[in-house]
Amino acid sequence: MQFWFDLASSYSYVAALRVEGACARAGVSLEYKPFLLGPLFEQQLGIRDSPFNVHLERGRYMWRDLERLCEKYDLPWRRPSVFPRSSVLAARIACCAGEAVGPLVRATFRANFAQDQEIANPAVMRALVDGIGGDGAQALALAGSSEIKAQLRANTSEAQRLGIFGAPDFLAAGELFFGQDRLDDAVAWEATRGSPRPART
Amino acid sequence: MQFWFDLASSYSYVAALRVEGACARAGVSLEYKPFLLGPLFEQQLGIRDSPFNVHLERGRYMWRDLERLCEKYDLPWRRPSVFPRSSVLAARIACCAGEAVGPLVRATFRANFAQDQEIANPAVMRALVDGIGGDGAQALALAGSSEIKAQLRANTSEAQRLGIFGAPDFLAAGELFFGQDRLDDAVAWEATRGSPRPART
Repeated sequence: MQFWFDLASSYSYVAALRVEGACARAGVSLEYKPFLLGPLFEQQLGIRDSPFNVHLERGRYMWRDLERLCEKYDLPWRRPSVFPRSSVLAARIACCAGEAVGPLVRATFRANFAQDQEIANPAVMRALVDGIGGDGAQALALAGSSEIKAQLRANTSEAQRLGIFGAPDFLAAGELFFGQDRLDDAVAWEATRGSPRPART
Repeated sequence: MQFWFDLASSYSYVAALRVEGACARAGVSLEYKPFLLGPLFEQQLGIRDSPFNVHLERGRYMWRDLERLCEKYDLPWRRPSVFPRSSVLAARIACCAGEAVGPLVRATFRANFAQDQEIANPAVMRALVDGIGGDGAQALALAGSSEIKAQLRANTSEAQRLGIFGAPDFLAAGELFFGQDRLDDAVAWEATRGSPRPART
């Protein structure tokens, strides 16, 4: 199953901290697909901000809902002082994280939504990579390469092509599921209809 | 627990056919709160159509998602040839349905989303009321009264005040839950934190 997420997305945080466990329990392999919501919102809605900031009622609900969800799933939570944060650098680092993508993604989401750290800051990202046993300086250098930049752009284009309009999403046996609350549905769909395949292809 | 819905709303259909069972299993009393999304969308978003029609990607996903949800919950489903239908008349009839509000709401949602019937048509609504053992002609007359019109307007104003921005919603022990996929969360919230109260106050 593919997990599509933006590291700036609040509901993606909840999904990111639950997705590995849900897949493992169902024997479903997991592929991380970082992408950027910004270009999708701009193209589809003509806005250059989060819909949660543009639509005030929706935003007000989301922040309270996040508190409840984190309590429900026993996840750490601290409302970020900046929202949405630019996730371009973090997404590029996720694109070159290889086998460490799971720990890197969880550490980045925790930094943004539980520790109020600025994930757009290279020093913050370097420390996060170092903190999971990687080489932060090397990751920053790789994230700036044209190959990685192109990979993130390709992911975002693929998201658009799949019909994605928000995050998180799960692609299970060819079907798109939108929203963290559909994680279990997606995993069940993949477990019953998907074909076995190696993790992180 | 209060169930807030618009009879034109596709996801409200799924919730409406599940909410009585979910409440009954948890020993939670249920109050139906019909309202109109149209004025909220116009005031909050400046649109005079469903967001599912305005935001194409979101709409495309919704129709497929509805098919899947109806399969999951074993609900009848037929994509309506008109969307959204005007739900003013149907909502007014729901406002004056008294003890029959549950059967009336389910029959109306089924007409719209499983039988492709035009619920804005008075003859259709009269037949629906007759079909659940009521007096369709009397219901139509009552729905046209200034008292019932005012009640629906008051419900819509209260929805706005509660921070509602879409449907369905559940108000459980003072907390708003948005979306049919949060029904179980809302019922659990009411069951553990709500105070007992009579149904349909």
